Amino acid sequence: MTVLPADAVTELIRVLPADQVLTDPDVMATYSRDHTFLQPGKPLCVVLARHRDDVVATMRWASAHRIPVVPRGAGTGVSGGATATDGCVVLTLDRMTAIVELNPEDELAVVEPGVITADLDRAARAHGLMYAPDPGSYEISSIGGNLATNAGGLRCVKYGVTRDSVLGLEAVLADGRVMATGRRTLKGVAGYDLTSLFVGSEGTLGVITSATLRLRRAPLVPPATVAAEFPDVRTAAAASGAIVSAGLRPSMLELLDRMGLQAIDDMRSIGLGANVGAMLLIQCDDPDPQPGAEEMAKLCRQAGASFVAVSSDEAESAELIGIRRMAYPALERLGQLLPEDVCVPRSALSEMIERIAAISASSGVPIGCAAHAGDGNLHPVFVFDRGLPEPPPEIWAAAEEVFRAALDLGGTLTGEHGVGVLKRRWLELETGPVVADVQRSIKHALDPLGILNPGKAI
Amino acid sequence: MTVLPADAVTELIRVLPADQVLTDPDVMATYSRDHTFLQPGKPLCVVLARHRDDVVATMRWASAHRIPVVPRGAGTGVSGGATATDGCVVLTLDRMTAIVELNPEDELAVVEPGVITADLDRAARAHGLMYAPDPGSYEISSIGGNLATNAGGLRCVKYGVTRDSVLGLEAVLADGRVMATGRRTLKGVAGYDLTSLFVGSEGTLGVITSATLRLRRAPLVPPATVAAEFPDVRTAAAASGAIVSAGLRPSMLELLDRMGLQAIDDMRSIGLGANVGAMLLIQCDDPDPQPGAEEMAKLCRQAGASFVAVSSDEAESAELIGIRRMAYPALERLGQLLPEDVCVPRSALSEMIERIAAISASSGVPIGCAAHAGDGNLHPVFVFDRGLPEPPPEIWAAAEEVFRAALDLGGTLTGEHGVGVLKRRWLELETGPVVADVQRSIKHALDPLGILNPGKAI
Repeated sequence: MTVLPADAVTELIRVLPADQVLTDPDVMATYSRDHTFLQPGKPLCVVLARHRDDVVATMRWASAHRIPVVPRGAGTGVSGGATATDGCVVLTLDRMTAIVELNPEDELAVVEPGVITADLDRAARAHGLMYAPDPGSYEISSIGGNLATNAGGLRCVKYGVTRDSVLGLEAVLADGRVMATGRRTLKGVAGYDLTSLFVGSEGTLGVITSATLRLRRAPLVPPATVAAEFPDVRTAAAASGAIVSAGLRPSMLELLDRMGLQAIDDMRSIGLGANVGAMLLIQCDDPDPQPGAEEMAKLCRQAGASFVAVSSDEAESAELIGIRRMAYPALERLGQLLPEDVCVPRSALSEMIERIAAISASSGVPIGCAAHAGDGNLHPVFVFDRGLPEPPPEIWAAAEEVFRAALDLGGTLTGEHGVGVLKRRWLELETGPVVADVQRSIKHALDPLGILNPGKAI
Repeated sequence: MTVLPADAVTELIRVLPADQVLTDPDVMATYSRDHTFLQPGKPLCVVLARHRDDVVATMRWASAHRIPVVPRGAGTGVSGGATATDGCVVLTLDRMTAIVELNPEDELAVVEPGVITADLDRAARAHGLMYAPDPGSYEISSIGGNLATNAGGLRCVKYGVTRDSVLGLEAVLADGRVMATGRRTLKGVAGYDLTSLFVGSEGTLGVITSATLRLRRAPLVPPATVAAEFPDVRTAAAASGAIVSAGLRPSMLELLDRMGLQAIDDMRSIGLGANVGAMLLIQCDDPDPQPGAEEMAKLCRQAGASFVAVSSDEAESAELIGIRRMAYPALERLGQLLPEDVCVPRSALSEMIERIAAISASSGVPIGCAAHAGDGNLHPVFVFDRGLPEPPPEIWAAAEEVFRAALDLGGTLTGEHGVGVLKRRWLELETGPVVADVQRSIKHALDPLGILNPGKAI
């Protein structure tokens, strides 16, 4: 049954309330972009889902008419995973914001996908619990988007990535059937692990409409913070390695390079010494955080830190960690940014940073670097001219050199941002043709018409 | 191309050394059973793989002739996942025992599937590291089998199940292609999570030929152990819940019920008092384990323990933990055992144990119960007559009541043993028809001829 697109939309309005099917071009435009420079296509319409059944109705209709569906959370992605394509339906879950259950006894929450990540964390803290995953965007990104990209964050050095906090999911499949994966228990091996398959699948296998998430005990006292300055990246990386190897469990272990620090100092003077080549910002949230923080500080000194400060004062801690949060805004003063996201084995961290510096020097492209050092996850940030609509070829050429260096060191193209649109052309470099083929066959098995977020992720 | 089975075997001997293709009936019989009562079928032959390429050759040959392949590790499974079927090839990986790499800096190991789990742990400890997953069978089971069933264990209350220690896999697909999933890094979101899909898939999607496993820092001092006696299961379960809720992180938190304790006391007198209804055996492996253990002991007393002992002496600790290890041998003196494996949300632990006791009372079937209490994972052990070849219908009827009770309490049919053959008939009760259908479609996508361990797991 082939119908004209306009007739298809009319039909959709018959099964969904009219105020949930938006066709105004300006409104649609706001639901078509994510946080990349990518120029989106023109959707047929935007569906505002308020309930799982709206998603079911949309997917049934889309299957009947073979209309592509681009699922969308808060639209804060940086890989293009939620970018609209021409003639698609944007299915936005940002109105499904219910925390359906918050169960302190079993330390779990059942939430709709539109819940803002930090809101869930705050709701959990009212019960002495926390939702551990904290991507940089967690005040503006939603659980659904975090699930779609298997988002990381600062605390995942201790608590793991989003996947590690997911017990089960409810998802609507391409044909509108509803599937519940996983369970409410901590362990379980009944059947294939479809929960893990859907986490990180960027909306290409189904639309997540509910998640059962694991909460953890929140620390009772504020964390202690260590800020350590190093003459160069190599000594900072060595200190990071020593902290992890000593079996200490930092709840945050961040590295900033000179370029990032310089930009921050230029924006808001932090008294940066001329001989500071790198900084580690570390937190310890142990039940008694001070001894762990002192131990970490000692290892920083032993590795060659020129200056080390330890604080368990909450305001002072926040100020120190604030330095990390300033990195992107500070670098943005230099031009437009392409924030990248490679991950290498921890032992290769300093070599990776040095290779990035060499690529920057040889290409002439300014690349600042912040890293979740404890995980070996680096965010090289490529700076390009503000006037340009998108990163010019020399930026992509330098980025490709960085990707190849990461793979060469046993690493991956993306630690936590996802593949989206921007990394698809390099993906097979990492996975090889057999994995690529298996991924396509799984995609085909679950979405034979190819209507779920086509052209993304795999 | 259809050939007679005997001709097919002759053809296999042409591509594999003759001493790796076994057809002696007695030898084949030893490779046909696992640790269940299940009567295996008669295989065509047994292939002893010594190298990945042997697996490739076997799968190519099996695909060409549409011959079913039953992959096999150490054969210690308790769900029938490695049981031979008539006319199959048993592909045993137990000769692939190389620890290919043990990398202390990146805290990872690359191993072949036949490595005995405890051997890897010991090898890691020589470098101050450990391999955390420790299924009850870990001195006799292999990594490959642990991966196939996503095995749990005692320490997973703190360190997670097998899946949580897997970074990447190499697997041979049904058609003989070799696929490398995952990575050597701690984070990564490039493409679907095929690693998690293969872990727990019980040899139905591919044959794992290598695994990149995460190691962890081993504690520097021996753990401290708490043994606590309670008047009943409810107070013991309450103590277990209090320990977890307090944010303490026991590295072991085991519960034994009266029937198990009685059997142990009958076998080797442990001085069990008449009023002891349940026991918790707890370990703390914190860097300084004594304060944590004391805190756990205090919570046991507060919950109503009648007797609590704390020990940081290594020999005494081993003796206390030995009580837990005696449960199965002790119950075996009462008859043949059907060891089961349900998991419920932690808050439902004591209700689940009470329901098991009620099912035992109403059915007249003796059911002892040990539990990984911190995870809500229970092992009800059904006792039946030694003379019988398999559990009689009344045992299965009681087991089904237990399964339904677990599902009713929000739990799962299997926390760590896997589905194998024995639990297939109940699986859809838990997953529902949509998940069952999705699992079949994924199976079909990866193994269109249906030759990989047919009739198992899904």
